[in-house]
This record gives sequence, C-alpha cells and structure tokens, in this order.
Amino acid sequence: MDRRSFLKRAGLAGGVAATALAAPALAQGSTELKLVTSWPKNFPGLGTAPERFAQRVEKATDGRYKIRVFAGGELVHPLKVNDAVQEGTAELYHAADYYFQGKVKAYAFFTAVPFGFRPDEMDAWIQHGGGQALWDEVGANFGIKHLPCGNTGSQMGGWFNRPMKSVEDFKGLKMRIPGLGGDVIKALGGTSVTLAGSEILPALQSGNVDAAEWVGPWNDLAFGFYKVVKFYHYPGFHEPGSMLGIGMSKKLWDGLSETDKTIFEACALAENNYDLAEFNANNTQALDTLINKHGVELVEFSDDIYKEFGKAAKDVLASAGASDPLTKKVYDSFLDFRKKAVRWSDLSDQSYMNKRSLTEF
Amino acid sequence: MDRRSFLKRAGLAGGVAATALAAPALAQGSTELKLVTSWPKNFPGLGTAPERFAQRVEKATDGRYKIRVFAGGELVHPLKVNDAVQEGTAELYHAADYYFQGKVKAYAFFTAVPFGFRPDEMDAWIQHGGGQALWDEVGANFGIKHLPCGNTGSQMGGWFNRPMKSVEDFKGLKMRIPGLGGDVIKALGGTSVTLAGSEILPALQSGNVDAAEWVGPWNDLAFGFYKVVKFYHYPGFHEPGSMLGIGMSKKLWDGLSETDKTIFEACALAENNYDLAEFNANNTQALDTLINKHGVELVEFSDDIYKEFGKAAKDVLASAGASDPLTKKVYDSFLDFRKKAVRWSDLSDQSYMNKRSLTEF
Repeated sequence: MDRRSFLKRAGLAGGVAATALAAPALAQGSTELKLVTSWPKNFPGLGTAPERFAQRVEKATDGRYKIRVFAGGELVHPLKVNDAVQEGTAELYHAADYYFQGKVKAYAFFTAVPFGFRPDEMDAWIQHGGGQALWDEVGANFGIKHLPCGNTGSQMGGWFNRPMKSVEDFKGLKMRIPGLGGDVIKALGGTSVTLAGSEILPALQSGNVDAAEWVGPWNDLAFGFYKVVKFYHYPGFHEPGSMLGIGMSKKLWDGLSETDKTIFEACALAENNYDLAEFNANNTQALDTLINKHGVELVEFSDDIYKEFGKAAKDVLASAGASDPLTKKVYDSFLDFRKKAVRWSDLSDQSYMNKRSLTEF
Repeated sequence: MDRRSFLKRAGLAGGVAATALAAPALAQGSTELKLVTSWPKNFPGLGTAPERFAQRVEKATDGRYKIRVFAGGELVHPLKVNDAVQEGTAELYHAADYYFQGKVKAYAFFTAVPFGFRPDEMDAWIQHGGGQALWDEVGANFGIKHLPCGNTGSQMGGWFNRPMKSVEDFKGLKMRIPGLGGDVIKALGGTSVTLAGSEILPALQSGNVDAAEWVGPWNDLAFGFYKVVKFYHYPGFHEPGSMLGIGMSKKLWDGLSETDKTIFEACALAENNYDLAEFNANNTQALDTLINKHGVELVEFSDDIYKEFGKAAKDVLASAGASDPLTKKVYDSFLDFRKKAVRWSDLSDQSYMNKRSLTEF
C-alpha cells in the first residue's frame, strides 16, 4: 500500500467538495469535528476504521461530539491530512503515518518498516515500550497528538509474472513497491515503481511492471490482480503489520476533559483491536477464494532471497535512522525493543506455530 | 494458570468481607456496580485488567457509573464469579471463562484450549468469525453478556526438574497443569496435579511435583520458580493465548442506553488490546532477567514430543466437544475457523518470523 494509491480511486485528488464546507445544523451543545482520511470512502479495513471510530465517539459521548469523516480528496488531498490538522483545516485525520515521512523520517517507524514489528510487537512497543511517547514527540512538532487506530496485519510479498527463484531474478525487475521496501528492491538490482492502487492492474496487463505488492488477500482480491498474474509470493518483508492511526489537533486533545480523553482513547484502541481482527478474518477467506476459485499459485520466497532482503533492509533502515536527531532517537528505541520482541516472539508464537504445523491437528 | 491458583493468595477464599457490602455514598445520578474477579488485587496483567476497565468506564461516563472491583474471595469465591452474576450478587465479573467449563464445557473455548488460537486468531474468531454470537449464546443460559477484555498471550510450556528429551520422560511425571492441558499430560502417562499458584514453589521444593506450568516469564519470575528448577520449556501447547473476559448481567446490558453500551464495549475492547501488549512487553523483559540473572536454561520441546502432544490434544478436544449440543456447536465453529486461521497464520506471521530469524538483522 502506498501514499499515492488512493488518489485515482478517490477521484477528487486535491479538490475540495463544496458540500464539505456546509456544516449541518447541530443540536445544542454538540461539537462537530472534521476527520480527514487518506482512504476512499469505506475502503475495506482502511476507510471503515475511521468511520467506526467516529461512530463510537459520537455514541459514547451521546452526540456531544459529531465527527464527520471525509474520504481522501474530499476535503483535502489524501496525503495532506497531517498538514490539514497542523494547519487547522480539520481537527483529526486517519492515515498510515509513513505517508508523512517526507516531513520527518521518524514517521515511517509508526506504521511499518522492512523487517519491523508484527502487530502485537508494535502494540507492545507503542503501549508499553516507550513508543507512544516518541510518537507524540514527533507529532508535537506539528501540533498533533497520535493514537493507534487499526492495523492491516502482515502483508503479502506481492504478485509476480513468474516465480522468483533466486536473487538474480530481481535484477532488472520492475516492481510496484513504494518507500523503504522499494529501496530494498533497488538494492537487489530491480526498479521500484510507485503507482496508485487502481493503476496496478493496467500496469500488470500492459507489462509496464513485472510485479506488484498491495496489501493482502482481502484487498488484493478486490483489485483483481489474479486475472493477470498468478504467482502470489510470501512472506512479505516490507510491511509485517502496518499500524493505522488517528492524528488529532494537540490543542483539541489538551483541552478535552478527562472524560472525553478517555472516550477518544478507548474508541481508538478498541478499533486498533477490531480492525486487525477484521483483516485477519477476511484474509483467511479471501486467500481460499484466490487459490481455490482463481487458481492462484503461492510461492514462498527462498531462504537465500530472504537473507538478501534482510541485508539490504538493515542498510536501508540504518540510513533512514540517521536522517535527523529525532529519527535517530526513534530508530534506537525501535532497534532496542525489536531485539527483545524478536526474542519473545521466537519462544512463544513462532515456536508454537512451527510445532503446531507438525501435528495432524 | 488455573482456577484454584489464586485461592490461597487471595487469602479470603469463600469468605465475604463485611466491608464489601457497605456501599459508599454516591453522587446523584451515579450508579454503583460491583465487579467480582478471580484475581488477587492488582495481580499483574490479570487483576490490573478489570481495574483499568472499571476506571475507563467511570471516566468515560463522567462518574455516572462507578464500578467497584473486588479481588477473588473478597465478595465471592474467585471461581464463583460467574455464579455471582447469574444470581445477582454482582453485576459484572472478570475472569478466564474456562474456569466455568464445569457449568458447560463450551466455556473452555472462550479462554484457551490445547493447540487452539493465538491471541490474534482468537480476536478474529470472536469479532469477525461468529465467536461472539456463540459466546453470548453460552452466556444467555446464565443471564450473562460476554465481552473480550484481555489476553495473557502465548504461555510457556512449564518448569521441569530435568530437560524433557523424549515422550518416554512423561511417564510417571507429576506435573502441576490443570484442565484440558492436564488431560494431555495424562494421556502421555503422566499425572496432572492442580495446585494454587502460591503452592507451586513449595511443591517443587519438596519434590511433590516434578514440573509445573503457570503463565509466562512475567508472572513466573514473580513466583520465583527459578530458585528450584532451571529448565524452562517452550513452546507451551496448552494455552497459546488465554483470552480474559468481562461477564455482565444480561439484564443490565439489555437495559443500557446505546451510549453506555458503546462505552462498556469500547472500554473492554481497548483493554483487550492494552493487556496483551502489556504481557508481551513484560515477558520480553522478564525472560532476559530469568536467563541472564538467574541462569535459567531454555529447553525446546522436541518435534517428536510435540507430535504426541498434538495427537493427545486432538482426542481430548474431540471428547470435550462432544459434551453437549451447545458445546458441539462451539467446537465445530472453532474447528472450522481454526483451519482458515492456521492457513493464514502460516503464510503471514509464521513465515515472516521464520524468514526474519534467518537474517542477521
């Protein structure tokens, strides 16, 4: 998934719908807040998360707050939602914060980085490992308070027009994969291309790209990549669990009563849990459809390929981490917590799953 | 962890503290609710979860609801909290619902069963795979509405006085491991013993048991098992992610406004996320302490042992699933969703972690 992917789908990129500015009549004592998003209206798991957050807050406050959710491009450009809150155009946004790594590279670490955290490792870092304080430190520079509010779960490695058998196969490969993941592909001799989500299928059809990653089975099935390319690779190295987040005006946040802070925070955290569960449940179903109905062939990246991904990713991340002092601080915290998290995952979920796979059960 | 474990620690098992019945004076319009738990006061990750839930609800409702949290044994017996809500002694409880499998076996599936769901698989089943409706169907028989509210994460395989090298080593082994996990040990020729948590260390010291499981590094470090036994086995097969839950009076739930339903639900779901993150973050730290400070030796269960665990668990679960028609319905749903969940986990988190382990990063 990437920053430009939704522009075309949203259809209103950069434009402002006139109706968006006409606030509806509100009951006495009710405050309307604007929440801008990077997503098309109700896009599965991405656009639905802020809608549910808004509904929960409105219900939980008995209508004292009404949060109007804007699709990407409806009020502001999908990738300018952080700017919009910084500048006061909207009070809240919902996005994947790595969209804003152009403002400060540190933001990449609060969505997903190559060989980074799985969702529960990210939650542990954010909620109990110092991550939230660092995220808020990053946001404070833009007048923004951050809250975790969703997760795509582990993403697949992408669709290829042939099985990738060795690291040599990446030389000259044209792949649609943005950001730090794209930098890894480049390090292996390929070309990384950034395309909007809706542009991926045509590009695969015309041969303009040989490969593309998007999200996972649930979202990839919807775009129909299986019609052109059949080799669905795993596991993805580039986004092992992409956290989505609410960014809200720090001025608004600081002025909230304890009651309202609790409600906003609880509703965001509830969605953080609910959204990941939705992705996991739907990926399960969609994967069966892709394989059994559409004849998709799963291809596992070889160990050798993965080792090369790992080497390149280490360099790519170190380079990103050296961007500026604040990013360095975030990178150091990430690296330190990652060591501990990997160790615990190895002994718990990873080992359990591997042993489970050995049984007939 | 098991049902009787907290009795001795709570110190008031079966007793009712007189002060518990003297409700404090309340502000006008404020309703006091009683929440009984199976845990000692503020026991890490277990007793703290309902405290945080209660605080969130009180804050989010601006004090319209005050939830008084009772430790296990303070108002009712730690294992009678489901009964207490059924009978109207309290309006809510927080526990692990497998404590109540004596009422109906189906309850086991809503905490953890051998070779069952990891936390994110459980969340997917409960929230998007039909699990919540089944859980509520079980609870309706007792006038109870259920909400997910915490998770211990993956539990370790236990502490042994020697490394377990083959399935033969389980013959004659006396292990403190309760419930369905204990049935698996029995099937391998061992003896399963149920002891309160505080009784485990003395039993290991006296040689009354050769082995014991409790939870994971964070909680196990607190009990000091490392002082007697050094062989800490993994991965645990018996509780790969134990969901904790709120059970509340269905009459109370049905009578709540939409606002209050939203608040109770969001606060429970927020804690479901926050609590798991806390376990994972603290297990990470505690594991380092156990290994580096206390000389604990990690021992991985061999593939052969695990295959035997799996065979026995399959039979134990099938037997449990055949207990009654409602449990059969839950078991069938569990089995069906498990197939899909295992498949998706295999291609996503499991594969990613395995490949990640190959890299130097």
